[in-house]
Amino acid sequence: MNRFGERFTMTTYGESHGKAIGCVLDGVPAGLEIDEAYIQSELDRRRPGQNEFATARKESDKVEILSGVFEGISTGTPIMMVIYNTDQKSGDYSNIKDIFRPGHADFTYFHKFGLRDYRGGGRSSARETAARVAGGAVAKLMLSKIGITFSSGISAIHGIQGKELDFSYPPKSPIYALDPSVEEAQKEAILAAKNRHDSVGGVATLKISGLPIGLGEGLYYKLDAVLASAMMGINAVKAVEIGDGIHSAEVLASQNNDPITDQGFKTNHSGGILGGMSNGDDLICKVHFKPTPSIFIDQESINTSGENVHVSLKGRHDPCVAIRGSVVVESMAALVIADMTLLNMGRTMEGIKSYYR
Amino acid sequence: MNRFGERFTMTTYGESHGKAIGCVLDGVPAGLEIDEAYIQSELDRRRPGQNEFATARKESDKVEILSGVFEGISTGTPIMMVIYNTDQKSGDYSNIKDIFRPGHADFTYFHKFGLRDYRGGGRSSARETAARVAGGAVAKLMLSKIGITFSSGISAIHGIQGKELDFSYPPKSPIYALDPSVEEAQKEAILAAKNRHDSVGGVATLKISGLPIGLGEGLYYKLDAVLASAMMGINAVKAVEIGDGIHSAEVLASQNNDPITDQGFKTNHSGGILGGMSNGDDLICKVHFKPTPSIFIDQESINTSGENVHVSLKGRHDPCVAIRGSVVVESMAALVIADMTLLNMGRTMEGIKSYYR
Amino acid sequence: MNRFGERFTMTTYGESHGKAIGCVLDGVPAGLEIDEAYIQSELDRRRPGQNEFATARKESDKVEILSGVFEGISTGTPIMMVIYNTDQKSGDYSNIKDIFRPGHADFTYFHKFGLRDYRGGGRSSARETAARVAGGAVAKLMLSKIGITFSSGISAIHGIQGKELDFSYPPKSPIYALDPSVEEAQKEAILAAKNRHDSVGGVATLKISGLPIGLGEGLYYKLDAVLASAMMGINAVKAVEIGDGIHSAEVLASQNNDPITDQGFKTNHSGGILGGMSNGDDLICKVHFKPTPSIFIDQESINTSGENVHVSLKGRHDPCVAIRGSVVVESMAALVIADMTLLNMGRTMEGIKSYYR
Amino acid sequence: MNRFGERFTMTTYGESHGKAIGCVLDGVPAGLEIDEAYIQSELDRRRPGQNEFATARKESDKVEILSGVFEGISTGTPIMMVIYNTDQKSGDYSNIKDIFRPGHADFTYFHKFGLRDYRGGGRSSARETAARVAGGAVAKLMLSKIGITFSSGISAIHGIQGKELDFSYPPKSPIYALDPSVEEAQKEAILAAKNRHDSVGGVATLKISGLPIGLGEGLYYKLDAVLASAMMGINAVKAVEIGDGIHSAEVLASQNNDPITDQGFKTNHSGGILGGMSNGDDLICKVHFKPTPSIFIDQESINTSGENVHVSLKGRHDPCVAIRGSVVVESMAALVIADMTLLNMGRTMEGIKSYYR
Repeated sequence: MNRFGERFTMTTYGESHGKAIGCVLDGVPAGLEIDEAYIQSELDRRRPGQNEFATARKESDKVEILSGVFEGISTGTPIMMVIYNTDQKSGDYSNIKDIFRPGHADFTYFHKFGLRDYRGGGRSSARETAARVAGGAVAKLMLSKIGITFSSGISAIHGIQGKELDFSYPPKSPIYALDPSVEEAQKEAILAAKNRHDSVGGVATLKISGLPIGLGEGLYYKLDAVLASAMMGINAVKAVEIGDGIHSAEVLASQNNDPITDQGFKTNHSGGILGGMSNGDDLICKVHFKPTPSIFIDQESINTSGENVHVSLKGRHDPCVAIRGSVVVESMAALVIADMTLLNMGRTMEGIKSYYR
Repeated sequence: MNRFGERFTMTTYGESHGKAIGCVLDGVPAGLEIDEAYIQSELDRRRPGQNEFATARKESDKVEILSGVFEGISTGTPIMMVIYNTDQKSGDYSNIKDIFRPGHADFTYFHKFGLRDYRGGGRSSARETAARVAGGAVAKLMLSKIGITFSSGISAIHGIQGKELDFSYPPKSPIYALDPSVEEAQKEAILAAKNRHDSVGGVATLKISGLPIGLGEGLYYKLDAVLASAMMGINAVKAVEIGDGIHSAEVLASQNNDPITDQGFKTNHSGGILGGMSNGDDLICKVHFKPTPSIFIDQESINTSGENVHVSLKGRHDPCVAIRGSVVVESMAALVIADMTLLNMGRTMEGIKSYYR
Repeated sequence: MNRFGERFTMTTYGESHGKAIGCVLDGVPAGLEIDEAYIQSELDRRRPGQNEFATARKESDKVEILSGVFEGISTGTPIMMVIYNTDQKSGDYSNIKDIFRPGHADFTYFHKFGLRDYRGGGRSSARETAARVAGGAVAKLMLSKIGITFSSGISAIHGIQGKELDFSYPPKSPIYALDPSVEEAQKEAILAAKNRHDSVGGVATLKISGLPIGLGEGLYYKLDAVLASAMMGINAVKAVEIGDGIHSAEVLASQNNDPITDQGFKTNHSGGILGGMSNGDDLICKVHFKPTPSIFIDQESINTSGENVHVSLKGRHDPCVAIRGSVVVESMAALVIADMTLLNMGRTMEGIKSYYR
Repeated sequence: MNRFGERFTMTTYGESHGKAIGCVLDGVPAGLEIDEAYIQSELDRRRPGQNEFATARKESDKVEILSGVFEGISTGTPIMMVIYNTDQKSGDYSNIKDIFRPGHADFTYFHKFGLRDYRGGGRSSARETAARVAGGAVAKLMLSKIGITFSSGISAIHGIQGKELDFSYPPKSPIYALDPSVEEAQKEAILAAKNRHDSVGGVATLKISGLPIGLGEGLYYKLDAVLASAMMGINAVKAVEIGDGIHSAEVLASQNNDPITDQGFKTNHSGGILGGMSNGDDLICKVHFKPTPSIFIDQESINTSGENVHVSLKGRHDPCVAIRGSVVVESMAALVIADMTLLNMGRTMEGIKSYYR
């Protein structure tokens, strides 16, 4: 259950303050050039410690490939990537060793597994998502060969919504903003919360272009369903929308159906998915992140003995986890699409006969 | 990919106008009393043709069990259930045989599979969800034995939101309304759209009570992730929220974190899930349905030759698919929880030693 | 766990004396002509009651397709097939209701599931293999389109080994013999055992021709490993050999390695598999069946209360289960190859780029 | 497809001459003491370079755990183990860079993946089995807590069969012999072949004791079927037998059925499995290994251009791969049983109710 995907699969391992985190990719086709610099550049986008809008923790997040690549080319065998943990200040956590942090997984992990890995959340820490970004980077390398591209950014912070989304802008913004006109207001909201030792939520919006028509499998592995699973499974995510999402539930069908013409779809309320399959239009997905639960304000909780306590966290945390989370959104989406791309082959006799000719 | 779940699994089959639909349940424990009347009563909740708020199509939806049950008790072997299709007016569809209905899966299925099953959407029809309800009913039978219960209803129609949700009210309401105070307004919105040959969207809210702490597996089979997949995979669903959902992304952590006390959680913004696992509180999930795409208004589309055409549908369709959809929401949730219940066994050495003692 | 395969999957259901048995095939490509007469002819090969070398039970084994096929063509959606049980003389079994038949699954099923479906073994009965034959027939239809063919027969009965195997002979032999020169001796061995109210074992040999090079996936889904699983999982099978099998373990490498030339392999000791993948040569597999455990001789056993009893079975049973088992061998092999055929697509970037061009 | 198991799963990675090999275990229950010295001792049993009956290659095979263990106890999260490759003399292989070694996977891998990792077989090398042994060791640690134990050894070499198998003897024998009375003859057969630059095959026999009744799932995840898959998937294995195996196919049912008494089974022809489930008796399995295909005798082959060549291998290879293979047999068996142990929980309502009480 620490594996994602059916044919292009990623298994991750590692805890926030253990020796290392990483992943094994299984199903990567042979013959793909593995551009390590690109993989590292993706990790660098998610890396902490880069500005005042993210945690001050510094992880170098250097990724190393230990298998599956020979002379720079994928061999069709498992690609194992490792990222050693370097900035392991477990001491930061000794004071909350026996306390369940509100909004965190401490409480549920303790009850499920009967023990406590108190080092910063252990496996439940968002640090694990670095491994997902490494895996997603390989997926993106593969998909770029068939013209599928990904972009993402922040559409809203603390309720401050972007209106005109410019998917070329996030790389220029320290908060990966999609709408420059609200970027300053969004930044201020973050810093205001940070100064109050609090944190804010935000929304990442994802766009995938160049999709073939028909990606998505059966009724229980639909493209939107698997995307929803991939997104909801990212730390701190509480809601996922496809296309117009919740707005679709508020309008009439005559306003929501996308007319089809010989030039393509006239509108894209559907977000590029019909019947659980890609329709060839841009795929649009919105992912809502709650505020980072780690705050430096006094909170009520209990300890492992069940006694009421007050907890006041220390350490270094993101004032808005959505920002770096948007990189993870893109990575998970790439894994979904890579998987669907492989699964889709062999859906018709014509395709099979052509392949084995 | 027409299978759902890992240990308590459901495989469905059948098309809207084929001979039958149904499912095979694999992983149902032995020794469960299979109450066929209860299963039928669940199907009856989803059954069309019951009032003016649903399609006038009449399907008896009689379910028959062909295997896996002996003398009224599950034997631990696959339970196969079949529902024969009786009201197959394929003729209704002959006029749209070569046309892609906007908002439907016709377009994507045609491109994926290279052929057209034009009989009412074939496999992509929401009729298949009757099989899910049959499967979910067995899951609910199992879960009721360990105190887990499900309820659901309609919280919003066409933007008309319920405020105080009463989970005991939907069985008394023809639109399964959760808030009696807005029920009439919601009914009017449905009928107004219906009279204009249009349709409306809506929102179903689900509540699960009695969950043990710790359901949810690994980082890629989290409880919220799998629920999101289950919900987004239901026909017409475009957004899924857990707990406060999109609202969580608009507030501060100090407002969103649920304080923990020796009496339990003080609030339930999280919707009963922390770190991808149940925390013992009520699980709350909101599911947004788009308006039924089948409307009787002239729409632009293309045919299978790629030519522009105008399409004006006929037939019998739900003016608000969310209503009957809410029953499917509950059924899919039951399947998720049943699966997680089985998967959770064996997570600790203590549990294993106790089981094999 | 009642599902076989990863991409071309079969889920079976049903018990020997329940209402029906059957299967759901998921992953069958769209556009395949589904020749129902062929599927029935495959079932007829396995059907009991045809001569003195098989059980006298008469099952018509008429298969009906309830979904996944439209106008004679597969639609890419699940194909559900049902075979209603007609000759259900459960009365035959009332005398052994509380007794564990030696050599049967009664004992283990009772202890696993805590209950007894005493009607002829229920789910554990070889009757379920009729569903496998129906599924395998569809796999063979698909594979025939890319030149892959299957043949099988009986190579040994009660230790009487065939030497020169003629894969065109079994259809002419009531015991599906592969070597006409020993057929009479093999028949006599069967009838001799039958007359003594006993039964004999036998060996089926399978040949698959026309395989492309490279079928077989990763290190835990190798072609030979999955074949071994498919074969060992057939009722009464106790050993599986690939190519020279046990003989390979008795010779030198210089005798066992198959020299490679520009005309192909000089010998085929490997049985067509190298490194867990098809090498393009004929795939050869030997499957060893124990004698039918149901015999009419007094045997020692215990009842469900744990008391010693003597059991003397009645009813109608195959004097040599290997004969009809050889048809199941072929069917399961077809399912394995169909699955591997789909899985193999997308193993190289070149193939992916070509597919999505 | 480089993953084994359903609930207790192992994913392996790495090539014989890459940077490292290893595995990720997912599904190990929390609360298990992870005895690293024991894991290393298991690897040491498989380690090459220990005497004249194995390859002279020296790999230290030091295993390191990078995740999933905290303070010596498993946390329920993925356990990642790495073994760095130290003795990588890739130069040994430069002369066969473009040549397909007879009896090896070179030919099939090249055709499947379109490229050649010529460094000693790369992923197809038996070196990968060190990772399996590490994984199997953790499975054995878990199973020992509920009284399940494993033993194995060599029952035959080059046709020289052991008669009386003593499962306590292999640890004292450099060839892991099970029958001391034929050990010398077996040794001589190995050395005779080695001196002729050839190699011999052999047979490993496995015994599992202490199994509960009822391990084994559904009809396509039977205990014997999954064992057969696990065994046939080990490098060089060509045949697998359960219990009396091929002998069962040569006798009468009256000789093969195991009588049941209130003291247990009178005989164990079945090898401890009935109907695909453990029956509580010792599980016996025989695994047949072909001779190591790497020999130093001139052989016919072709190169990657399809031209006929003569190949004369160099390097350091096992004269009988079955010996070290027997350790892998035990490891894979432990993984199978661990998986089945977890899967079996939740098979009855009684068990579920007791667990969630």
